[in-house]
Amino acid sequence: MKKLEEYVRSIPDFPEEGIIFRDVTSVLQDKDSLKMAIDEIQKELEGVDFDLVLGPESRGFIFGVPVAYNMNKGFIPVRKKGKLPCETVEMEYDLEYGTAVIEMHKDSIKPGQKVVIIDDLIATGGTIEAITKLVESLGGEVVKIVFLMELEGLKGRDKLQKYDVASVIRYEGK
Amino acid sequence: MKKLEEYVRSIPDFPEEGIIFRDVTSVLQDKDSLKMAIDEIQKELEGVDFDLVLGPESRGFIFGVPVAYNMNKGFIPVRKKGKLPCETVEMEYDLEYGTAVIEMHKDSIKPGQKVVIIDDLIATGGTIEAITKLVESLGGEVVKIVFLMELEGLKGRDKLQKYDVASVIRYEGK
Repeated sequence: MKKLEEYVRSIPDFPEEGIIFRDVTSVLQDKDSLKMAIDEIQKELEGVDFDLVLGPESRGFIFGVPVAYNMNKGFIPVRKKGKLPCETVEMEYDLEYGTAVIEMHKDSIKPGQKVVIIDDLIATGGTIEAITKLVESLGGEVVKIVFLMELEGLKGRDKLQKYDVASVIRYEGK
Repeated sequence: MKKLEEYVRSIPDFPEEGIIFRDVTSVLQDKDSLKMAIDEIQKELEGVDFDLVLGPESRGFIFGVPVAYNMNKGFIPVRKKGKLPCETVEMEYDLEYGTAVIEMHKDSIKPGQKVVIIDDLIATGGTIEAITKLVESLGGEVVKIVFLMELEGLKGRDKLQKYDVASVIRYEGK
């Protein structure tokens, strides 16, 4: 049987020279690898006590919602600024060039709730670090962070040392 | 037991005056309504013969992927222009002011494949009409379109008369 990592399509020099883009659409479009990817993320959560899954727009939605559904939890979407209709909390974080702002609804997490963050990929870890701060500003607790893929060369884990972080597929480079 | 539609939060005058925004985040954050929403969409697909689920960025990802997982199908993300790394097909469509362009990977659908489109909401139907054209340009067949919510007053179904369209929650107005 083909391994999950063999379904990931690697595209050199996208979106810019020197970057190898790890394309997850090739994983999604095959029913076997779609199932494997979600099951593998879920395996990392066996025995973890939590209330909510949280995923950043938009590829975090892809993997976060099926896991929430399967494990009978709620799902909190973290969105780019301006897309959520009710009162939000927001956090700015650094990109390679400039900054970005993410938001979540203020009433999405109640104090004391245990949260799992799921995303497709950890690169520099800036988005996820910002999300952990948002969760904590609402009184929530980040009990685990799971990625489908990790680019170890970008050292994103360094920003998340306080947390229990897991990834299904690891690439040594960037 | 609380009904699914009671979980939808309605926000008057967002994003602009005269519009009632139907907020799906309140459905997602509760584990019971999240499950109900996905199960209801899935019920519309019982007995339908299809190969792939297709969902537009980004709320189509939320409902499309769990259904694909549960029914053992692949998932095709339709994205805003510039986000997909391989060769794409694209389609422009009208917004209230101006136009937008969506894309999908050229190799995502093989000729003859049967496709189901899932999204959170049908308003004017412009995005979904554009997606049906993209699917057909690749030789795929749209066998069903399912929305969680429908704003009947915006007559989006008029653009999709050729197709089998279902929605779980219907609002008379806009």
